[in-house]
Amino acid sequence: MKPRKKQPDVTRRAVLEAAGAEFARHGYSGTGVDAIVSRAELTKGALFHHFPDKRSLAVAWVGKLLEPVIDELWVAPLADLGSLDAMKSFFRTRCTELDAGDATSALVAMAAGTSVTDEILAAAFGRVFAKWRDAIAAMLERGKRDGWIHRSIQPEAEAVFVVSAVAGFCATHRPVFSEAARRGCAAALEAYLETLRAQ
Amino acid sequence: MKPRKKQPDVTRRAVLEAAGAEFARHGYSGTGVDAIVSRAELTKGALFHHFPDKRSLAVAWVGKLLEPVIDELWVAPLADLGSLDAMKSFFRTRCTELDAGDATSALVAMAAGTSVTDEILAAAFGRVFAKWRDAIAAMLERGKRDGWIHRSIQPEAEAVFVVSAVAGFCATHRPVFSEAARRGCAAALEAYLETLRAQ
Repeated sequence: MKPRKKQPDVTRRAVLEAAGAEFARHGYSGTGVDAIVSRAELTKGALFHHFPDKRSLAVAWVGKLLEPVIDELWVAPLADLGSLDAMKSFFRTRCTELDAGDATSALVAMAAGTSVTDEILAAAFGRVFAKWRDAIAAMLERGKRDGWIHRSIQPEAEAVFVVSAVAGFCATHRPVFSEAARRGCAAALEAYLETLRAQ
Repeated sequence: MKPRKKQPDVTRRAVLEAAGAEFARHGYSGTGVDAIVSRAELTKGALFHHFPDKRSLAVAWVGKLLEPVIDELWVAPLADLGSLDAMKSFFRTRCTELDAGDATSALVAMAAGTSVTDEILAAAFGRVFAKWRDAIAAMLERGKRDGWIHRSIQPEAEAVFVVSAVAGFCATHRPVFSEAARRGCAAALEAYLETLRAQ
């Protein structure tokens, strides 16, 4: 009995999860369809039944698996932050949790390593980063309104910078993030966020 | 007459330059040896005469071409900076010059997109980032000694953060860096650097 073959959603999800695990480790170009089907314990036929090619699989992975995790980690929690100290604490925690194998690293590795000519895949990653930046900008705008972010702060520019700092940490510390580097990055980010405080 | 065949250094350099151009656009895994020899207008035999495989070619490119450019852009100028304002001005200029096709972007794209299992290539990129961070840390240490950087600053942690912010900007804005994003990043980085000032 092979239940997966009778449950298209389960198969689809298994393919996406296997693809994500391979993409995170080896990048888009470095991942072959063979490695994905092998990891998912499926046939190539089953994979191509659900996704016409590797690119459509990658775009589906970004939208269905990666983006929800990035939302959960970096986007949704921002709506609950109501003070500069809460914001600093949130970013400190997330930065000290960063790991070379996690979703944030997968996003950065895939986005940075995507061919500049691959507009479809670049657009998929661009949407994830834009959503992340928009959430930070919205939080800072709210903080300005509520009086805990300095009125002279430009939310969009700060959002570009915060996402760059977090993503750049992942990009420059592969394949292993040392504890000292993580703590250093978290401390420097906190010191930076302190400059946004209303006075 | 084919002068390149009689000048091994010229051929070697042509291979490295062609490889770099392809790597910067398509990443390591996304670049085939065929594309490199085609761009360099050489034969595969000529390429393999100089480099046994794509990895050794990539490592040579990092050391011989990429690292000297990163040195020139981000490392050597730091030795001449003698004030916080000079440091801010330097980083503002460099950030507004960042481009998706430049050496900094190539470094970030390649480093972030390298397979986590490729220790040799990861180490080559790791050395470039470490040198860049060390130069920033040394400058900040000097600034502390000379009285223009605040005494409580931890140079290593700040260096991790600055390199992360610059690299992360490149990683999160492919394939095109908009003028507004560049200016925003430069302004936020400047505001951050201001927090390092001696008081």
